Amino acid sequence: MKVLGLILAGSSKSGIEQLTMKRASAAVPVFGKYRAIDFTISNFVNSKIKKVGVLTQYYPRSLMDHLGSGKEWDLDRKTGGLFILQPFFRKKDEIPVYKGTADAIFQNMTLLRRGDEDFVLIGSGDHIYNFDFSELYRFHLSNAADISILTKEIDNEKELSQYGQVITENDGRITEFYEKPEEIKSKRISLGVYFINKALLIELLYTSIPNGGKDLVKDIIIPNLKKLRVYAYDFKGYWSNIKKSIETYYNTNMDILKKEIRQELFYQNKIYTKLKDYAPPKININASVKNSFIADGTIINGMVKNSIISRGVRIKAGAVVENSIILQDTIISEGSVIRNAIIDKDCEIREGREIIGENDIKVIEKGTII
Amino acid sequence: MKVLGLILAGSSKSGIEQLTMKRASAAVPVFGKYRAIDFTISNFVNSKIKKVGVLTQYYPRSLMDHLGSGKEWDLDRKTGGLFILQPFFRKKDEIPVYKGTADAIFQNMTLLRRGDEDFVLIGSGDHIYNFDFSELYRFHLSNAADISILTKEIDNEKELSQYGQVITENDGRITEFYEKPEEIKSKRISLGVYFINKALLIELLYTSIPNGGKDLVKDIIIPNLKKLRVYAYDFKGYWSNIKKSIETYYNTNMDILKKEIRQELFYQNKIYTKLKDYAPPKININASVKNSFIADGTIINGMVKNSIISRGVRIKAGAVVENSIILQDTIISEGSVIRNAIIDKDCEIREGREIIGENDIKVIEKGTII
Amino acid sequence: MKVLGLILAGSSKSGIEQLTMKRASAAVPVFGKYRAIDFTISNFVNSKIKKVGVLTQYYPRSLMDHLGSGKEWDLDRKTGGLFILQPFFRKKDEIPVYKGTADAIFQNMTLLRRGDEDFVLIGSGDHIYNFDFSELYRFHLSNAADISILTKEIDNEKELSQYGQVITENDGRITEFYEKPEEIKSKRISLGVYFINKALLIELLYTSIPNGGKDLVKDIIIPNLKKLRVYAYDFKGYWSNIKKSIETYYNTNMDILKKEIRQELFYQNKIYTKLKDYAPPKININASVKNSFIADGTIINGMVKNSIISRGVRIKAGAVVENSIILQDTIISEGSVIRNAIIDKDCEIREGREIIGENDIKVIEKGTII
Amino acid sequence: MKVLGLILAGSSKSGIEQLTMKRASAAVPVFGKYRAIDFTISNFVNSKIKKVGVLTQYYPRSLMDHLGSGKEWDLDRKTGGLFILQPFFRKKDEIPVYKGTADAIFQNMTLLRRGDEDFVLIGSGDHIYNFDFSELYRFHLSNAADISILTKEIDNEKELSQYGQVITENDGRITEFYEKPEEIKSKRISLGVYFINKALLIELLYTSIPNGGKDLVKDIIIPNLKKLRVYAYDFKGYWSNIKKSIETYYNTNMDILKKEIRQELFYQNKIYTKLKDYAPPKININASVKNSFIADGTIINGMVKNSIISRGVRIKAGAVVENSIILQDTIISEGSVIRNAIIDKDCEIREGREIIGENDIKVIEKGTII
Repeated sequence: MKVLGLILAGSSKSGIEQLTMKRASAAVPVFGKYRAIDFTISNFVNSKIKKVGVLTQYYPRSLMDHLGSGKEWDLDRKTGGLFILQPFFRKKDEIPVYKGTADAIFQNMTLLRRGDEDFVLIGSGDHIYNFDFSELYRFHLSNAADISILTKEIDNEKELSQYGQVITENDGRITEFYEKPEEIKSKRISLGVYFINKALLIELLYTSIPNGGKDLVKDIIIPNLKKLRVYAYDFKGYWSNIKKSIETYYNTNMDILKKEIRQELFYQNKIYTKLKDYAPPKININASVKNSFIADGTIINGMVKNSIISRGVRIKAGAVVENSIILQDTIISEGSVIRNAIIDKDCEIREGREIIGENDIKVIEKGTII
Repeated sequence: MKVLGLILAGSSKSGIEQLTMKRASAAVPVFGKYRAIDFTISNFVNSKIKKVGVLTQYYPRSLMDHLGSGKEWDLDRKTGGLFILQPFFRKKDEIPVYKGTADAIFQNMTLLRRGDEDFVLIGSGDHIYNFDFSELYRFHLSNAADISILTKEIDNEKELSQYGQVITENDGRITEFYEKPEEIKSKRISLGVYFINKALLIELLYTSIPNGGKDLVKDIIIPNLKKLRVYAYDFKGYWSNIKKSIETYYNTNMDILKKEIRQELFYQNKIYTKLKDYAPPKININASVKNSFIADGTIINGMVKNSIISRGVRIKAGAVVENSIILQDTIISEGSVIRNAIIDKDCEIREGREIIGENDIKVIEKGTII
Repeated sequence: MKVLGLILAGSSKSGIEQLTMKRASAAVPVFGKYRAIDFTISNFVNSKIKKVGVLTQYYPRSLMDHLGSGKEWDLDRKTGGLFILQPFFRKKDEIPVYKGTADAIFQNMTLLRRGDEDFVLIGSGDHIYNFDFSELYRFHLSNAADISILTKEIDNEKELSQYGQVITENDGRITEFYEKPEEIKSKRISLGVYFINKALLIELLYTSIPNGGKDLVKDIIIPNLKKLRVYAYDFKGYWSNIKKSIETYYNTNMDILKKEIRQELFYQNKIYTKLKDYAPPKININASVKNSFIADGTIINGMVKNSIISRGVRIKAGAVVENSIILQDTIISEGSVIRNAIIDKDCEIREGREIIGENDIKVIEKGTII
Repeated sequence: MKVLGLILAGSSKSGIEQLTMKRASAAVPVFGKYRAIDFTISNFVNSKIKKVGVLTQYYPRSLMDHLGSGKEWDLDRKTGGLFILQPFFRKKDEIPVYKGTADAIFQNMTLLRRGDEDFVLIGSGDHIYNFDFSELYRFHLSNAADISILTKEIDNEKELSQYGQVITENDGRITEFYEKPEEIKSKRISLGVYFINKALLIELLYTSIPNGGKDLVKDIIIPNLKKLRVYAYDFKGYWSNIKKSIETYYNTNMDILKKEIRQELFYQNKIYTKLKDYAPPKININASVKNSFIADGTIINGMVKNSIISRGVRIKAGAVVENSIILQDTIISEGSVIRNAIIDKDCEIREGREIIGENDIKVIEKGTII
């Protein structure tokens, strides 16, 4: 069974604007040395997908730099491999932009048409989870489904309203699908991962897009819910959409300090990322490090607790970093105190400064010297 | 001396529209197995350039497919390498488009800023020539030039009006520069290849673009001709801009049948292209092949004379191909006659058909079955 | 189903000594741009094998140069890929040599032990054929076989004595196996390709080698014929062992000029080789080329008939090449005549010379200037 | 200036036998994630060497696994790149073995002959230092030297006797060279790194080897000391030969905990190694880590002080690791105590065990469960 993977990574909408001012949300750093998209792309590769298209448009460079030729994911191949696809200029007076998820796929019809894949797996670049989709393939086939959607039961009412909600029959067939409804219709949300027969997808796109369709859910799945066999696969593992809010981004990072989540995310199936030639972290004689993730190239002289320290960070003597996320190559100078904060890449926190989030997590933007 | 290479390959203007309806002009096939851009990119690599940015926007996919990760040109490196750069979406209401050559470079300022190169060599993706730029580097340094431009003396009056013309002092310093003037100012034309100090280029861009500058020649070089030391390097070799007209495209292809031009273009410095796994051409017992270039994967049963036969073409028994260019995977069926024609990729010329250019070269578009 | 591929390419025995004085027989050039091993390695890759060990010892450099990192066969991977394995020095007074096929595999036990493959497919580097082994896998499983061997029925009595001969029951189970018997026992020969459960292979090796076993057929398969279920798969396609004799080597090359064999060998499943940046062949105005294979980078001015012309060969005006194989970069000067001959790489045949095989094919060794 | 790099990595002699029972000394792990050879190969690449031959014979597989296609060092190139070269079988009755350093190079004459390099830089796979050889190139040229040798002044009398000692004139020209003399002749030792004109090297080898020469120093350099201009370049940086003794190996590893040495070895010019997809180290709530190097993929629950913890190691609750080196994937179980010890790869130290070096460093061999 050959499957084409598509990763939607083009949206400029973001609940974590302070971190996505000059980068695609799929390129946001997580867990000390990863980028959000590493999870979906590794999941795809681990599920034997050999051709992956990443559909990007908003600040795509950070993604391109990170993904390169795809060799870190074994996607630099003679046939297949990795395709990073922006919307492009075809005719005068036609703005090169993806108008929605369905339109984005439609604009890359050549990728769909050319290959010999039978199925398409569509995911998002912003989701953190570890899943071997082989299970979804089996589910799809055994239900003779047209479309299978990854779904999950959640409780948080505030979050529920931000997702599509589905109601299913006993066997999992979706009978109702509400896109971000104001009042709660169901606690089962769509995780935005779709598995679909390729020929069917092409047909649906050709029917919808020329008539103004733009969005995969609103314009294609919901209107066809009766005609097509759309099934909900119940995903039971850890899952997070880091783009939802700074709080979600922060909590997801902190979750990795929990043993069970770390084991689920890293030891179940391998997660690949762009590796860099940093020396191992050096923890010096006066340092104290507790319950933390410490990436390559860091030098720790101060006190670190309940924190994620990314590659190349330096924490100088007498500095205190607690309940915080420090992104790549940032310097925390002598005697400064960082608490409940996210310090983006290439910052320098000067001697004696205090960066303390009180009610909310405090975010210091990339490149700040303070 | 470290040099950053930039290849301008984004324009949608084309004198060979029949061949560029769905491909960038830099991706137009030439000489049986090459694409136009192979020459500039190989020239760059042969001149020790290790980082190359290809600025593309109009139908970039054919270029991306061809260039891939750059490994055919040894440009898939840990640092440096190949960057294929489309304009991208930054903010709502800002259309992602390159407004001109200077603007295209300005939009990729990060590429300029990040590297440790001292110089930038700017070329075009449409030009066919073989040149080791080391000579230009030496020329530039020995003149203490600010900008050095590749120029060439040509005679053809019709062509002259299509190029920028320069007037130089004895030592090569350009004193006057006319962009495509209506009346001939000089027989020395600019070949659109610029060598410039990187810091100076950055400064010129920051001065010009925010004030509405768009074009490298009109908005940056011409206005600064007095202030800067701009020199003309006299290129004496074979040079052709295949995008100018179907006639130029045709003649350039035919030129490769001449021994001296073939030797200059292929044996001076190596020209690399994306290689494909075709078997060697098979020339059958009843075939007749004279004065022709026959690429891999072809099977010849008919008569071929003064022609360029590209990869995977089949010329069946009794077919006649004369003074023509047959592009990849096209089938010339039994008894058909092709003369003074260009048959694009994936065509099928049916049995007994005649495709004969009379006054002009006849062009059959990609995918035609006739 | 995961399969480890092993290619035996270490023997110094050769029936084509003139061509294997300084190269492994698996590295002997065939068909204008290939090496013998390309067929087995491509067959393996086309059969979804992702890890291939090439066991080499006699003049391995030509093989190493050709195979490189395996990227031409998509075998340059993060996990798995290509391993070129010579015998190596472990202890003083132990000569690093493979004592036979079984010993060669035993010495590379680490490769077997480390991977997660369930089966091992063992082939030879000298055989020319095109086969998708998926069929063999199915045959093996449906017979619940312990070992499945590729076999073929041949008629040629002279050849028969050079191969192992097998006698099978109706269902294909091998009951008798004679290794190169003096008198003909069966017309079904073993093609030296073995498919076997990995754990079983490891067990058989550990039982045999420490007790002096060396050879896979004599010391492992034949003694276990009763105990194990050994099956013969009947291969019906084109197959040739180019190392048998100069005659075989010559005839195999000439076979590619036949349409059906060319189609079977090249168009069924793709054959990959190391590609080189040569320009397409140029056939000049006075050349005559009939029924020949003409590889990249050649320039033909003379007369070529029923011949294989390899990459970079030059055939000058007035030269005649008939019923011959010309290997890479050789020059056939003006007025010389080559008939029924094999001219190895880098030779120069001077003006007016005649190289004509009378009863036998004449072979000119690599680098000869004559 | 083009330079061919050769790395001698074939000797089976070793002062650290416990660590080289099944691996080449150049493949011995250092500093948590490196192998000894990473330093010389990175130094070569950082000095613009684009073709590197690694001459290996004793247990070469660990080196081959580590170096792969050379892509981590940007040595997977179309031309040039990395060559891992064992001695090979040419004729019956000729044992494939390198008889000495000079013979090893002689047996790889093809590598020397084929390239267009002017110079050869010969180094060893066992030395830890960080040096940009450009300085040596300049020294060589400005002295119009025939051979330039990296040398260093050392004091340790015990060590002195293990190295070649040189006496120079004021300008650095070597007038006397004593190979491991019993009594001290000079405190300036040869570091076994030679820079030499390629044509001269070829000539010297052709003169010496056929007459029984084997060793570069004894048979080529010393006998020619008067005839040739041999110069000593005085290397002032950190340098260690980890193969000398377990003590040296241990001390070199511990040296990386010193700030100045770490900066010299890692921040001067980049050191590359084979990167692996481990998650960042997790230091848990009850762990205590002081003055240590902690590589990727480790999980620390116990107490670690003055130690090097390699990739994938687990140190369980209550365990104590002090003044020790723990190699890859080893498990230190609850309550065990490791002091003044080296625990090789894949060991398991069971609960409550004590491994304590008293007068000497205690070494636990690879794979031990204790």
